[in-house]
Amino acid sequence: MDLDRFEGLFPAAITPMDGGGRLDERALERVLEFNLQAGVQGFWLAGGTGESVLLDDEENMRVATLAAACTSGRAASIMHVGTPTTRRSVRLAEHAARAGADAICCVPPFFYSRSEDEIVEHYRAVGAAAGLPLFLYNLPGMTGVEITVDLARRIRDEVPQLAGLKHSSGNQPLVHDFAEMGLRCFIGNSMSMLPAMTIGAVGCVDGPPLIEPAVWLAVRDAYRQGDLPNAEAAQRRGRELVHAVFALGGDRYLASIKAVMTHRLGVDCGDPRPPGRPLTDEERRRVVETAESMGLGRVRL
Amino acid sequence: MDLDRFEGLFPAAITPMDGGGRLDERALERVLEFNLQAGVQGFWLAGGTGESVLLDDEENMRVATLAAACTSGRAASIMHVGTPTTRRSVRLAEHAARAGADAICCVPPFFYSRSEDEIVEHYRAVGAAAGLPLFLYNLPGMTGVEITVDLARRIRDEVPQLAGLKHSSGNQPLVHDFAEMGLRCFIGNSMSMLPAMTIGAVGCVDGPPLIEPAVWLAVRDAYRQGDLPNAEAAQRRGRELVHAVFALGGDRYLASIKAVMTHRLGVDCGDPRPPGRPLTDEERRRVVETAESMGLGRVRL
Amino acid sequence: MDLDRFEGLFPAAITPMDGGGRLDERALERVLEFNLQAGVQGFWLAGGTGESVLLDDEENMRVATLAAACTSGRAASIMHVGTPTTRRSVRLAEHAARAGADAICCVPPFFYSRSEDEIVEHYRAVGAAAGLPLFLYNLPGMTGVEITVDLARRIRDEVPQLAGLKHSSGNQPLVHDFAEMGLRCFIGNSMSMLPAMTIGAVGCVDGPPLIEPAVWLAVRDAYRQGDLPNAEAAQRRGRELVHAVFALGGDRYLASIKAVMTHRLGVDCGDPRPPGRPLTDEERRRVVETAESMGLGRVRL
Amino acid sequence: MDLDRFEGLFPAAITPMDGGGRLDERALERVLEFNLQAGVQGFWLAGGTGESVLLDDEENMRVATLAAACTSGRAASIMHVGTPTTRRSVRLAEHAARAGADAICCVPPFFYSRSEDEIVEHYRAVGAAAGLPLFLYNLPGMTGVEITVDLARRIRDEVPQLAGLKHSSGNQPLVHDFAEMGLRCFIGNSMSMLPAMTIGAVGCVDGPPLIEPAVWLAVRDAYRQGDLPNAEAAQRRGRELVHAVFALGGDRYLASIKAVMTHRLGVDCGDPRPPGRPLTDEERRRVVETAESMGLGRVRL
Repeated sequence: MDLDRFEGLFPAAITPMDGGGRLDERALERVLEFNLQAGVQGFWLAGGTGESVLLDDEENMRVATLAAACTSGRAASIMHVGTPTTRRSVRLAEHAARAGADAICCVPPFFYSRSEDEIVEHYRAVGAAAGLPLFLYNLPGMTGVEITVDLARRIRDEVPQLAGLKHSSGNQPLVHDFAEMGLRCFIGNSMSMLPAMTIGAVGCVDGPPLIEPAVWLAVRDAYRQGDLPNAEAAQRRGRELVHAVFALGGDRYLASIKAVMTHRLGVDCGDPRPPGRPLTDEERRRVVETAESMGLGRVRL
Repeated sequence: MDLDRFEGLFPAAITPMDGGGRLDERALERVLEFNLQAGVQGFWLAGGTGESVLLDDEENMRVATLAAACTSGRAASIMHVGTPTTRRSVRLAEHAARAGADAICCVPPFFYSRSEDEIVEHYRAVGAAAGLPLFLYNLPGMTGVEITVDLARRIRDEVPQLAGLKHSSGNQPLVHDFAEMGLRCFIGNSMSMLPAMTIGAVGCVDGPPLIEPAVWLAVRDAYRQGDLPNAEAAQRRGRELVHAVFALGGDRYLASIKAVMTHRLGVDCGDPRPPGRPLTDEERRRVVETAESMGLGRVRL
Repeated sequence: MDLDRFEGLFPAAITPMDGGGRLDERALERVLEFNLQAGVQGFWLAGGTGESVLLDDEENMRVATLAAACTSGRAASIMHVGTPTTRRSVRLAEHAARAGADAICCVPPFFYSRSEDEIVEHYRAVGAAAGLPLFLYNLPGMTGVEITVDLARRIRDEVPQLAGLKHSSGNQPLVHDFAEMGLRCFIGNSMSMLPAMTIGAVGCVDGPPLIEPAVWLAVRDAYRQGDLPNAEAAQRRGRELVHAVFALGGDRYLASIKAVMTHRLGVDCGDPRPPGRPLTDEERRRVVETAESMGLGRVRL
Repeated sequence: MDLDRFEGLFPAAITPMDGGGRLDERALERVLEFNLQAGVQGFWLAGGTGESVLLDDEENMRVATLAAACTSGRAASIMHVGTPTTRRSVRLAEHAARAGADAICCVPPFFYSRSEDEIVEHYRAVGAAAGLPLFLYNLPGMTGVEITVDLARRIRDEVPQLAGLKHSSGNQPLVHDFAEMGLRCFIGNSMSMLPAMTIGAVGCVDGPPLIEPAVWLAVRDAYRQGDLPNAEAAQRRGRELVHAVFALGGDRYLASIKAVMTHRLGVDCGDPRPPGRPLTDEERRRVVETAESMGLGRVRL
């Protein structure tokens, strides 16, 4: 498998819901299409921004199938298969492969504290089940597990499918370590795409780029051309967009990003799954106003 | 509903698995029966020690049904219904009520960081769905959420079913605060049953007492009679048993407690669900030896 | 040296300051005298409540000298000698011995992260310098160092003067471990004196008992007589007093306890040393009102 | 005052000690001279790498005086004046100004948890005492205080001397926020100089550059010329040097950096102040070998 495809901007897709709180595949297809037309290199599906562990396994599988179909030949899909048990993750991994995903990604098993042996064995089983490139998901703020350099090295040595990781941890200098050990490291914070690339990151996986991928694609392109001033300018614009998405507070992030996509695409992306709270009308008005004021208006696909 | 039943020793039940890794209801019935014959006041089912979030919803429901049948008229069952989504927890709560559970318990929604509003609303929906006494499960080490005194007060004010909590957090003096606000507080660390009772805890919910409930029942009885020397002696013995269960390290806890129960009951309680690792033969031998050396031999029911 | 003296209530003394922010020895003498007349077993001097690291070494030495003189033959003085360097702590330890302190106590070296080897060597040097019983001061919230059971065991094995510790950490069940290894463990939270004694604590070291030592002496006496109801009642009263001292928030603790002592003794105990802020007039009025409403009026010595 | 001088590489100076553990001014002069000849823009003196809180105030003042004399007209000196009390910090700040320092820097008051009001007032008093540009020192790993964006904003609004900060915290995207509010932000991790500059950092303050400043000066120069490949190459080399200094573990950092400087300059820079442990002979041999293997041989000034 050509791992070189796994670089650049991989927006973390939201998982749109319909009025009954069910997965809305048509809206998801629109979200992906908007980003495909902008030229993203791929997607990270059903991860943190995609309400991951809030989805039933059957919904997770439908996302995998739809994303593989949408992206086929146009971009790479990295499907999230993390659950608290090896059995469920293996099942989702097998399905992702059958559905045509290009790669899988997986948070470490969470809730229970696990030994390194258990984490490595979990990744070994999941990697073998899919037979696809595997990306770790270093997300200690949600999982309580820090994927250290030593742990990543063990996984690399024991899991032949390991291809890289999304690094969403505070210790940014580790990007260099992960790159040095041959892993394709996506930075998990879209305010840090440019800085991370200067120390070896291959790109960025995060939710906010979904609303205006062109900005982060400009970071990538300028960086690749060695054009620092434009790379920095694009990154500054990117940061402003991130702040806009988080303007109502971190706990309104999922609701806000869905509201911006609803506004831009003219397709209802719905609310976060409870206990996530929907925006109030007033909050929704503010999100839309902010988006408009930053040039994020309605788009035509 | 008479809340006075909710005091004393409520062992946290393991969830036995068969050779195929499936819920073993016959073994669970034996585990409960052993504790019932010892005289426990109730059980905490499918919580942390019961592999909680590793169970499918259908397994969770089977545990609820079986436990209600076993305990009926003999002890109280508190059924855990915590999941990451309100919808799933509501469904489990409704089932627990239909199945005849005496109460439900629920960890705060985990993985995603939630606002207090979202946590309160989650508990409101879950409490209303069951219409049973509701116990919070303060388990910040696994959920990342600390149920503070202020949050508990908000839940008490907005959730009429709230009856109490299991407090498994380092801040032990809060027991007094929870008691003072009218909550029935079970301490979640069986090394601290006696100290916690002196500041208002009504009892203890934890896994280790499952292997020898008589010891903690002796703590309770001596405490109620004002017999400090015997209460302290029983608590010391309890602590030694806890250390025995943790002798192989915290990450071998679930496997060890299952192995001790298998040894004592002569019924295979199985291994932890993966990624939990089974004991090696050598580890199993050591667990059994330690148990025997502490007087925990085979029992006859 | 008879270590049996080190049990019971050892209030952590404040360090009164005069209007110019200088150590006020006369006021300190009054604070100690009030507690001596109440019958405390000893004092913990120049620790956290005593503004410890805010004192110059020369002030620390004057406290040691004064406390030794005041307590001589009436109670035991445990003098704090913790500083960030071994040299300064050794010098303070030597002085404490010369001044007649009954024991010394010492936080682990702070600010820089230290290896266990360095911490053990620090305590070895400090213990040898004084030749007095040595108490560790487990205060991870301020020092960033958790004195684990393993570290305490290493210190016990390598520092012959080690006599015990003040345990001011969330992990309360460790009291039992420290007691089991032969250390005299004072609990560092006066809301937990009774619970800690039931698992092996020899007493309590904390600031709030300074304002009304009789309450915690009653906890001790009732506990020793096996009188649980009265021990619990006294502990409940103690907790209310702690809440009163913290009513303005944790960052007003030092100012509040000084204000209560000023009120009770009729001797100005001054303000916290800056950056600690003095109480506003309104805050002072509230502290005094609260104290009066709880029966803590002016005393006559 | 021209704040534009405060950009580029400001190595954090070690504080050399003689055989008796006393400040060795001659060796410090050599350390600074080596870096001045390499062309550094300035120094950060008596900070974390300079054994800060392990120095007596009188030693701190001698460092200020010597550094001001050495750097005069050649580079800028930023003198650290952080202590746990406002009085001591004010006194050190006044002295730094008299001694000719170009700026001061100051950790937030540590050990005791402080309110924002207290922290702001501390910085106000310290800033006014020196009347020099003031740099905050965001070092939560040692001080327990995170200087948030909001806190920095309050300090900026109330302390006219505030010029910038050293940011040694995991949250690297905040560099952008600090820059946006007009603060000159030095990144405190020399593995991150280049990435931080792409989001607004003006330079780097850290200890490892002291051993080979040319490498980080090359990062700066290439960055300023928009030469990304050479900037990245220099940053990679810098990271390797950092790893070399930390090869014996984080707790041997101060001893290792002193050993490398001793080796390079041929002037004994001594050992860390106890409880810091000196290197063993074997450790010293390894540090020197590593340095030599990386091209860090003896230099001639």
